[in-house]
Amino acid sequence: MPANIIDSLQVKPNKEVSLYNWKCNGLKKINKEEAERTLEQDLIKNMSELQYKLFADKSQALLIILQGLSAAGKDSTVRSVMNAFNPQNCRAISFKVPSEQERSHDYLWRIHNLVPAKGDIAIFNRSHYEDVVEVRVRKLLPRSIWSKRYQQINEFENYLDSNNIRIIKLFLLISKKEQKRRLEQRIRDPVKQWKLTESDLSEPFIYDSYINAYQETLSKCSTDWAPWYIIPADAKWLRNYLIAQIIIKTLKEMNLKFPKPKFDILKFINS
Amino acid sequence: MPANIIDSLQVKPNKEVSLYNWKCNGLKKINKEEAERTLEQDLIKNMSELQYKLFADKSQALLIILQGLSAAGKDSTVRSVMNAFNPQNCRAISFKVPSEQERSHDYLWRIHNLVPAKGDIAIFNRSHYEDVVEVRVRKLLPRSIWSKRYQQINEFENYLDSNNIRIIKLFLLISKKEQKRRLEQRIRDPVKQWKLTESDLSEPFIYDSYINAYQETLSKCSTDWAPWYIIPADAKWLRNYLIAQIIIKTLKEMNLKFPKPKFDILKFINS
Repeated sequence: MPANIIDSLQVKPNKEVSLYNWKCNGLKKINKEEAERTLEQDLIKNMSELQYKLFADKSQALLIILQGLSAAGKDSTVRSVMNAFNPQNCRAISFKVPSEQERSHDYLWRIHNLVPAKGDIAIFNRSHYEDVVEVRVRKLLPRSIWSKRYQQINEFENYLDSNNIRIIKLFLLISKKEQKRRLEQRIRDPVKQWKLTESDLSEPFIYDSYINAYQETLSKCSTDWAPWYIIPADAKWLRNYLIAQIIIKTLKEMNLKFPKPKFDILKFINS
Repeated sequence: MPANIIDSLQVKPNKEVSLYNWKCNGLKKINKEEAERTLEQDLIKNMSELQYKLFADKSQALLIILQGLSAAGKDSTVRSVMNAFNPQNCRAISFKVPSEQERSHDYLWRIHNLVPAKGDIAIFNRSHYEDVVEVRVRKLLPRSIWSKRYQQINEFENYLDSNNIRIIKLFLLISKKEQKRRLEQRIRDPVKQWKLTESDLSEPFIYDSYINAYQETLSKCSTDWAPWYIIPADAKWLRNYLIAQIIIKTLKEMNLKFPKPKFDILKFINS
């Protein structure tokens, strides 16, 4: 895949992004069959090898944040891409509506608690970004509170990056039409019905509110140290392929190294 | 006690403090017997009442950070002042040398995890300030790493303050002579010997290194949102008296309120 495609998926710092007219050149040229084959045969293996190096190196961690509207495919992404990773040193955490204990803390408390240790990978399925998006769309908090959080989040993520926790943030962009189709499918499908909540059913009616809230969030919180990527998510094969490529690129840029043995191995080998 | 004494104990933001020539006017005028009586009769009760209001109000938390050289009296402060608080909603945490799990995380990870919930008080006996002071004095990390932490800590504490966690930082200033006396006393006292560590014994030799490190830390990390107070700690009665006054002043400034009843109480009373 041409490197410039990953680059165009990345939201540039301090630049307003429009999600309504968003498009990325070059995507049309990606061939479905080839992408599926590459993912299966090369990318998954590549991710797994890089994770092993991350674990051995033990000086850095990787935090992958997944956000998106209802039915955008967050769970499905974890299932189909992230299972490339050895679960021994990779944890996927699904942040729910905060518990009473969590609500009695500052909003980054439960987040920081689950930040990965060095050598590890954490995948946050939803995250502290709910504390600027969900609280805004559902009017749970006044603007005066959530609007201050963009800067707090940028500083928190900057601190994590300065302490060797690399961050990738993936926004799964689903169209209103595709979201409606998936939710209707869940209503009809007895295997998927359980995933439905009352709030899911109201989602298509407030699609635009979510897109507006994400638009501002992505514009304000995409930084050099923790970039947001927009992932076109109507087609699952394209979504998976792009995410795998972004993860591989990030892990490669971390310059991971196998540490030197702690004792003189040759002595043992020669004896 | 005159309010201007508390003010002079506070390190002013962006001002270099000298711990070698440090003095605070007005301390000489405090009478020992009167201070001990006031602490016993009024201040302890006052602290306890304010804590109850903090708990009822449930919109803010109080974080008290205690730092100081070996034998400066941190444990003794917790025992003699902080036991004014109901332990139900007050937790004293003694941060030790980081465990392997803690070391594999960023240095604020274990700190954030124990930040108090709203309505609660936490007392940190040692804290993230070890990560700028101890690592420097004991040469555990290079300057390029710890020197970046001043700003990271200021931003972290600013975030906590913005999320209703009030912070008081108390530096117990002990003289080289008094530290030596106390350590020698511990060596001779079979009841206190257990507290001694090898690193304690080396402390008087590096007293100046600690004072230098604290001097820079207090100068760089005393902020409007998380002020450092210098507490003269050679005399325990004065130390306890001053700390109680600072805590009371801070709790009062938090404008705590008892919440309104959740239902119409009068209806029940009149029926």
